[in-house]
Amino acid sequence: MTNALVLLSGGLDSATTLAIAREAGFGCYAISFAYGQRHFVELEAAKTIAQDFSVLEHRIVPIDLSAFGGSALTDSHIAVPEIPCEGIPVTYVPARNTVFLSLALAWSEVLEVRDIFMGVNAVDYSGYPDCRPEFVQAFETLANLATRAGVEGERFTIHTPLIDLSKRDIIARGLSLGVDYRQTVSCYQPNDRGEACGRCESCRLRREGFVQSGVADPTRYVAA
Amino acid sequence: MTNALVLLSGGLDSATTLAIAREAGFGCYAISFAYGQRHFVELEAAKTIAQDFSVLEHRIVPIDLSAFGGSALTDSHIAVPEIPCEGIPVTYVPARNTVFLSLALAWSEVLEVRDIFMGVNAVDYSGYPDCRPEFVQAFETLANLATRAGVEGERFTIHTPLIDLSKRDIIARGLSLGVDYRQTVSCYQPNDRGEACGRCESCRLRREGFVQSGVADPTRYVAA
Repeated sequence: MTNALVLLSGGLDSATTLAIAREAGFGCYAISFAYGQRHFVELEAAKTIAQDFSVLEHRIVPIDLSAFGGSALTDSHIAVPEIPCEGIPVTYVPARNTVFLSLALAWSEVLEVRDIFMGVNAVDYSGYPDCRPEFVQAFETLANLATRAGVEGERFTIHTPLIDLSKRDIIARGLSLGVDYRQTVSCYQPNDRGEACGRCESCRLRREGFVQSGVADPTRYVAA
Repeated sequence: MTNALVLLSGGLDSATTLAIAREAGFGCYAISFAYGQRHFVELEAAKTIAQDFSVLEHRIVPIDLSAFGGSALTDSHIAVPEIPCEGIPVTYVPARNTVFLSLALAWSEVLEVRDIFMGVNAVDYSGYPDCRPEFVQAFETLANLATRAGVEGERFTIHTPLIDLSKRDIIARGLSLGVDYRQTVSCYQPNDRGEACGRCESCRLRREGFVQSGVADPTRYVAA
């Protein structure tokens, strides 16, 4: 069996990505990040999902991006917007996916894993630059120049199976693979019980995905 | 004044790089990493050097790469080699410079700094893949795809003023700019007082640089 490493945030997309990697026959390691996000409930969700899909090992790496600030997701003084905005929103965390992929690459090289899965999506997404195919391609190029493995002729591949899918299609795929979306947390500002606000952009994209899928939305929302 | 961010390890090369960035007229921020290296004396050295060159702010970011292991520099069970070897040595830390540059990029974006300086060198070096010009170029490409700043038409530049210099030329340059090399720690396995072993590859390259420069080697070595 070939092994892979999956970036697992605890959200809908990365849970689906893990399910897809398992379905493709990979033994899966999972990596999550305690990066100074506003809440830890998504990390609790990541643990549950990792267990559901029998990962070989799940690591939660502490890397405090809130020390740098500059994002509504890591700085509680910046409000999470609840109205769609033009351009890249303040929920963008500077260089977050670059940092996450770099650390995933470091662990992958030690694990002798060459396949890295990431649930980025460039259709129903918040417009973050580091979710686009050209970013992923540039990171793959970098990975093969940066590492001993790359120099010695092996190849790292960054798999992004959701990149061109709509949220509806992601949900359909995940349901067919047994993902329990009730366990996942997508909200940018859930409460301590993991209940979603229902108003931020991430909630909006997720909710619309369930509406379009024609399946009941299992998300636990904060009581109105 | 334009500001820059300098990766500062506490070694000879990064101290020289900071001096060059200051000489070029940049106001300088400095970033170091507590990455689980065997010793902290290089971080103490970094603090001293940052102060010598009046940086605007010096951050030491904790990111425990020793949790992944796979290198003599982060795993005390792997001996630091004292005889030159073929290929990439065991002192290579998987994806280290990718992780460091990613975090530097994150802070730079928040600081609105677009110039990042790094003291990598591809002449008198240990053969690490992530010290080569093609790696640096790939990271610069990535940085401009990964970030809000890049998307909005600004450009990050990764400056590597030492990349083509011999150790002798680096030392000559640094001395002309007032670098106090006695404060710097290059050794892969210094003792707690910051004294260098004199036997590892990093000591060897440094020592030869001073011999070729024709200046006295100010390095504090462990008594034989």
